[in-house]
Amino acid sequence: MAGERMAAEVAEQPAVFDSLVAGRGGLADVASLIATRKPRFALLAARGSSDHAALYAKYLIEVLLQLPAGLVSPSTTTLYGAHPDFTDVLYLSVSQSGGSPDLVAATEAARAQGALTVAVTNTPASPLSDAAELSVDIGAGEELAVAATKTYTATLLSLYLLVDAIRGGSAAAVRDIGELASTALAEPVEDAVERFRDIERVLTTGRGYSSATAAEAALKLAETSYLAARAYSGADLLHGPVAAVDSHTGVVAVTSRGHGGAAMRDVVQTVRERGASVLAVGSAARDTPADLRIAIPETAEEVAPILEILPLQRLALAVSLARGVDPDNPRGLHKVTRTV
Amino acid sequence: MAGERMAAEVAEQPAVFDSLVAGRGGLADVASLIATRKPRFALLAARGSSDHAALYAKYLIEVLLQLPAGLVSPSTTTLYGAHPDFTDVLYLSVSQSGGSPDLVAATEAARAQGALTVAVTNTPASPLSDAAELSVDIGAGEELAVAATKTYTATLLSLYLLVDAIRGGSAAAVRDIGELASTALAEPVEDAVERFRDIERVLTTGRGYSSATAAEAALKLAETSYLAARAYSGADLLHGPVAAVDSHTGVVAVTSRGHGGAAMRDVVQTVRERGASVLAVGSAARDTPADLRIAIPETAEEVAPILEILPLQRLALAVSLARGVDPDNPRGLHKVTRTV
Repeated sequence: MAGERMAAEVAEQPAVFDSLVAGRGGLADVASLIATRKPRFALLAARGSSDHAALYAKYLIEVLLQLPAGLVSPSTTTLYGAHPDFTDVLYLSVSQSGGSPDLVAATEAARAQGALTVAVTNTPASPLSDAAELSVDIGAGEELAVAATKTYTATLLSLYLLVDAIRGGSAAAVRDIGELASTALAEPVEDAVERFRDIERVLTTGRGYSSATAAEAALKLAETSYLAARAYSGADLLHGPVAAVDSHTGVVAVTSRGHGGAAMRDVVQTVRERGASVLAVGSAARDTPADLRIAIPETAEEVAPILEILPLQRLALAVSLARGVDPDNPRGLHKVTRTV
Repeated sequence: MAGERMAAEVAEQPAVFDSLVAGRGGLADVASLIATRKPRFALLAARGSSDHAALYAKYLIEVLLQLPAGLVSPSTTTLYGAHPDFTDVLYLSVSQSGGSPDLVAATEAARAQGALTVAVTNTPASPLSDAAELSVDIGAGEELAVAATKTYTATLLSLYLLVDAIRGGSAAAVRDIGELASTALAEPVEDAVERFRDIERVLTTGRGYSSATAAEAALKLAETSYLAARAYSGADLLHGPVAAVDSHTGVVAVTSRGHGGAAMRDVVQTVRERGASVLAVGSAARDTPADLRIAIPETAEEVAPILEILPLQRLALAVSLARGVDPDNPRGLHKVTRTV
């Protein structure tokens, strides 16, 4: 059946979350080693969906660990042979497959130049785990669908648990994340599917932690439903691309309670004034003046992205099927990029 | 006349480049101060077009200065009050207007936390220049068109000149950049305009240094012509979004001589096999198996982005006019984002 694999893996997420939270003790050694080494800077390397998980982690690291953090381009090493001094750098390489050759090469180079390297992957016996000094298993189980769903959220949750363990936290904010995920997955998406199935242009937008959700939602819609979907930070959107927003545009606005969601108010108002149809998704969706809303349970803002994406995965799946596309067999998509 | 301002500012670029190269001695003090402080890490903060200039600078800094470099999110400070220790960090804030409140606040916070802050702006007497310890004037002159053109390339060139001065270079790679820019601007774009005027979905793609060109080209097309244009790193494109590429897709592939361009070969082949119409732009365009080509003069790879975007600005302008849109009066666009 079309979309069967993706549907099954979307549905597995609450159980994956429960298991990750229950097993978080397994992160203690890695977290304690990182804390002991007192890194001064964090750099994150990733591609595709993992890049959105890295964007989320950048916020976690700056806000919760108070370390400067930035996203790097693996290709400075692989294409140009750069070999900066990485002393005092925590270098996190995020890849579900652990198999992207350029990420492996960049991680090896960072380690050789003094970085404390950590592979965050769903494949503990992968070239990336071998290349890095430390390794975190996101424990999502094998992912058969081509579109990453459970590996994306498991990466977010693993990164949260890791950062929380580094700061000596008790993971209180995610204690019930499995149950909340079930609730989020039960939210009806049918109205949104009706609205988005015939739209060709979609903008997704969020701010702060939820920028990651917007980026991942756009990628999911683009790769499963072939929509022209593009993500903008709410701030960047008003800077220029808002000019392209009109009544033919569908906007997915991620609005959760907290600073990020509050900063979205102007953005939603502006795109609606331009005639766009707005779908608000998040714990503040009910308070957002949108055309359609998908509410998700309220959590601490820093873990909201783990839930926000869930109905959007279902939306991507359903829009894809409604458009006669099988998301399990997208045209020309491979699970591991062989970029060098 | 529609598009008059944008056209005039696009045409000014060779003169702006000449003047920047001639005046590069003015950067000596800032460059020498930065070199003396021996920063260990570089972080770049920007929004919109400037964010693409920052992406370019990230490559420059990693490859030419051998410093780890990453892109930051100003909102970790402005939304979440993060205050990491920025000792040993070179913090470059890039903003043509120098007026974005969130960038100013993030720069103030970085400076207070020990960063060596440098404002790179077209407005020397701006809040951003006041907030930063050092300041670089990109000297593009007032920009009246809403779409950034000359300020984008002047930012790239200024960042190159700054990085080159920090490493004690003689700016040899950009000695003739003004003249080369005139040549690049004289390349005919009419065939490309014909091809792109009726296309609704455009992907732009590049690798390495040229990722910045792809990102900026997509933004320019989206904000002036209202095309659904989206940029992907060549590596990320094959990772998933290639599924959305079909015969209704226009692809702009930036292919310049060097490592980045060479890494694009597979990407171009893959999207063509999927039926997309490919426009190759760059110094290797003539050797790229594309449907349309815009060649630009060959340069050192690290300065190619300064030229690559020029015909793409003309393309955005002409497609916009062909679609009956005045790029000087895009719907709802303001020059300075008031994001907080």
